[in-house]
Amino acid sequence: MLKKIEITYRVKCYHGEDVKRLVRKIALEQTVEVPDELAAIRGIGETIIGKTESITPTNKENIYLAVISYNPEITAYQLPQFLNVLYGNISLLNGIKIIDIKLPECFVEKFRGPNYGINGIRKLLGVYGRPLLSTALKPMGLSHSELAEIAYNFALGGGDLVKDDHGLVDRSFDKFKERISLCTKAVMRANAETGKNTIYFPNICAPADMLESCVSFAAGEGIRGILISPFLVGIDSVRYLSEKFNMIFMTHPALTGTHFHDINHGIAIDVLLGTIFRLAGADISIYPNTGGRFGFTSDDCKKLNDALRQPLYNIKPSFPAPAGGMSYERITDMATLYGIDTVYLIGGALHLYNKSLRKGTADFLNKIREVFPEEKTTTPDLSSNLTHSSCNTYANTQGELPCHIPFSNFSWQGRTPKIYKPLEHQDFKDIIRHELTGRYGEETKFDLRYFEIAEKGYSSLEKHHHEHVIICVRGFGQLICGTEKITLSPLDVAYVPPMQVHQLINESAEPFGFFCIVDHIRDKPQKP
Amino acid sequence: MLKKIEITYRVKCYHGEDVKRLVRKIALEQTVEVPDELAAIRGIGETIIGKTESITPTNKENIYLAVISYNPEITAYQLPQFLNVLYGNISLLNGIKIIDIKLPECFVEKFRGPNYGINGIRKLLGVYGRPLLSTALKPMGLSHSELAEIAYNFALGGGDLVKDDHGLVDRSFDKFKERISLCTKAVMRANAETGKNTIYFPNICAPADMLESCVSFAAGEGIRGILISPFLVGIDSVRYLSEKFNMIFMTHPALTGTHFHDINHGIAIDVLLGTIFRLAGADISIYPNTGGRFGFTSDDCKKLNDALRQPLYNIKPSFPAPAGGMSYERITDMATLYGIDTVYLIGGALHLYNKSLRKGTADFLNKIREVFPEEKTTTPDLSSNLTHSSCNTYANTQGELPCHIPFSNFSWQGRTPKIYKPLEHQDFKDIIRHELTGRYGEETKFDLRYFEIAEKGYSSLEKHHHEHVIICVRGFGQLICGTEKITLSPLDVAYVPPMQVHQLINESAEPFGFFCIVDHIRDKPQKP
Repeated sequence: MLKKIEITYRVKCYHGEDVKRLVRKIALEQTVEVPDELAAIRGIGETIIGKTESITPTNKENIYLAVISYNPEITAYQLPQFLNVLYGNISLLNGIKIIDIKLPECFVEKFRGPNYGINGIRKLLGVYGRPLLSTALKPMGLSHSELAEIAYNFALGGGDLVKDDHGLVDRSFDKFKERISLCTKAVMRANAETGKNTIYFPNICAPADMLESCVSFAAGEGIRGILISPFLVGIDSVRYLSEKFNMIFMTHPALTGTHFHDINHGIAIDVLLGTIFRLAGADISIYPNTGGRFGFTSDDCKKLNDALRQPLYNIKPSFPAPAGGMSYERITDMATLYGIDTVYLIGGALHLYNKSLRKGTADFLNKIREVFPEEKTTTPDLSSNLTHSSCNTYANTQGELPCHIPFSNFSWQGRTPKIYKPLEHQDFKDIIRHELTGRYGEETKFDLRYFEIAEKGYSSLEKHHHEHVIICVRGFGQLICGTEKITLSPLDVAYVPPMQVHQLINESAEPFGFFCIVDHIRDKPQKP
Repeated sequence: MLKKIEITYRVKCYHGEDVKRLVRKIALEQTVEVPDELAAIRGIGETIIGKTESITPTNKENIYLAVISYNPEITAYQLPQFLNVLYGNISLLNGIKIIDIKLPECFVEKFRGPNYGINGIRKLLGVYGRPLLSTALKPMGLSHSELAEIAYNFALGGGDLVKDDHGLVDRSFDKFKERISLCTKAVMRANAETGKNTIYFPNICAPADMLESCVSFAAGEGIRGILISPFLVGIDSVRYLSEKFNMIFMTHPALTGTHFHDINHGIAIDVLLGTIFRLAGADISIYPNTGGRFGFTSDDCKKLNDALRQPLYNIKPSFPAPAGGMSYERITDMATLYGIDTVYLIGGALHLYNKSLRKGTADFLNKIREVFPEEKTTTPDLSSNLTHSSCNTYANTQGELPCHIPFSNFSWQGRTPKIYKPLEHQDFKDIIRHELTGRYGEETKFDLRYFEIAEKGYSSLEKHHHEHVIICVRGFGQLICGTEKITLSPLDVAYVPPMQVHQLINESAEPFGFFCIVDHIRDKPQKP
């Protein structure tokens, strides 16, 4: 069983450099960044430094294939550092290309990969047995309603997936919202007419601090997928968003091309747009099709398709989406070359065919059906819940928030007491909660609540990563905090550290009331 | 006055392709992504599509310099889309290199650039008139205390800036905290001995969702700068963190090298590691030095130095930091080549010189002083508040945090009352603060404070983006909140919205005390 990360480099020896020395230099550069002598002085050995596994000559002079294995621990099992170990410093050298990686399960299992993958997307669409047909909303410069009209016609023509052009970016969040609302409504309208389930993918290309709110808005609109360019927004941002939002992630290769144009430099297309993007959560990976305006070979494309579809431990297979250079006439060839589990991303050819996008789409789809007569369809699966994690959010009151929340007799104006937790928990007794701030449209990073426990009542015995800050304001009570039992008197403050088991108890005959402040975003309590 | 973004491409015509056609194809590819015919049908013109400004032959056959101008609006004034317009799709083509960009003020002014720049860093160090000396903590695999020992010896030797190796990445946040706490304490200890102000830069390379907490923790430790690799964590994440945290950002070029190895492909080093990284907030940009183990020319390096230092509207000049290939003997040459405003980043040479890092550092520094005899130093400027926004951070108590902070007579055990604000503000009267939680090693997103205003006292009249949640617990007082004046009685809660002018006043003859909860990371108050 593979325990280490194995990287295959194609290396070129310049000026008669010794290949063994060169390969050792790579292993040092990508780990300790010091020469062997210094590593030896410091006692750093093979658990840290990469190990040369093999060096094989090729049929080209001075060019070798070298395999170095690395301890996965040095990647911290995180994508940014993984990319660094893979190609960080050596990207600055000449004549080194990554042409293959083999990943051990202990590394891969730290990633979730695609949320849907090939089967999940087919299930949502209800389409089996044929490649999927996709197009882009463009050109940039059209009005929102013109873009929506394109989406509508493509969906009416029976197309499966419609994405924004990856250059559709809005300066303001409001414009973004307007654009994607119009486009998704247009697609929903078409779906209502056709009974199909065409999926719309808005482009998410935004400043780092707005990415999450853009995706969150899209999810809130009922949108099931997004288009994202890992090299524009940061590849680990894609991984994070994919883990947070249970949507279909279609990735775009913008800015990745510096890796591919030189056979002696960069990371091979199947490794980067295949394995790595898949680890980061790509359900569908767009790439420049052979025969189009970019110069990739059919061998490049087939390898990439394999990297996306082949078994990879817990990671679902993804759809390859060759784009560009597609015509009605090429569908048969493409089918032979790429097989069923492919997304055909077709732009101009579809828009211009028969001068009607709707008819063009229908014609292309018919052609696909001719080549793949075994198409089966089912009712699209719309049942799965697509939004991110759960929070007990109370309805936000929009508009002006009142400054003053007056107190009277342990109640606050405008703040109705709530039940402490859903009743099925049954591990608490006679306790109520008042949500004072944080749930009414404030932007604070914390919530202020007031809890009151009646005589002999208690809260759940639990633990969680988020911390509590407690201020006793009514009566007396007990805080169990790990092995401590503390009596709280009015205006005592208490702090519950992360993962400390705790409980609040009222052993007195009078009400015990306390404020409790917590992070607004927090984890779910666990049983001790 | 320049109104558009002007990009100079070096283009190569393959197979006798017409250069005008090729340049037009670039302009279309980077904007509308459709052929001219389709753009014309859709009525998209020059406000969207790039415009060919000039095409000049070079002395190489089939190679031209072409300038295309773009409307800055199409970048949305955001880095991800700017990178896309610059080189997104054409990265996937061959024979196109970006060799220069000219940016209009209306674009640049949307970015803040470096927080400190050359002058700000010199002021913090109190070092003028000579290049700065820097080293890296490595190799990966050393224990935290061994790394701290290196930092200590470098600082004792008089070095200016010490950074983590960019491969020092921790799998757990706890280990990260331990490492950077140890290293920063080591440097502080050395500073106490030398009277200097060596600055430590921990490496921030973490998953997208942990970047902010890592930087926030570093800021909370009193650390003034960080090392970050824009191509590993995402360039706009760097811009965002730099805007959020008023720290010195040192950037590392990991994974950027695919842009530089081919004169006919990529984005030139001075554009990428110079102008673009500076826009993203690089105070110091590390690059592979000429003569080192990477193959850059002295011309590359000089152009990059210029891009970092030259005037760019509102953007501060940044330090170039040539790294690699540096020896004691080369200092004089480097000085001639690069000038005063340079950071010499020296690894192995310093560690191995005279077999003592401390002595090696002192020797190198003496050599620099020989070449730059005009060195002036001043007392380091430690007054500026370095943490994220306005927080007055108190020393963190390490180790176990007590659960219970008992109250007695409006004091809390272990919590000494502090002055409300530095006295020079003089816009408040008779008010004290108690920091109850959030400043003692907790990880909460909020701080709990208790303020008490004596008879006729008041707080500053001010506004800020962060919100206040207030709970009155002693006496009575007035809250001015915009045009409202509210009387607060015990256990009344009040909320001050973002940017609302506010003040707390005690018009009574008894003390007025209240808890105030705020976000842990917050902006500085402004005068109304």
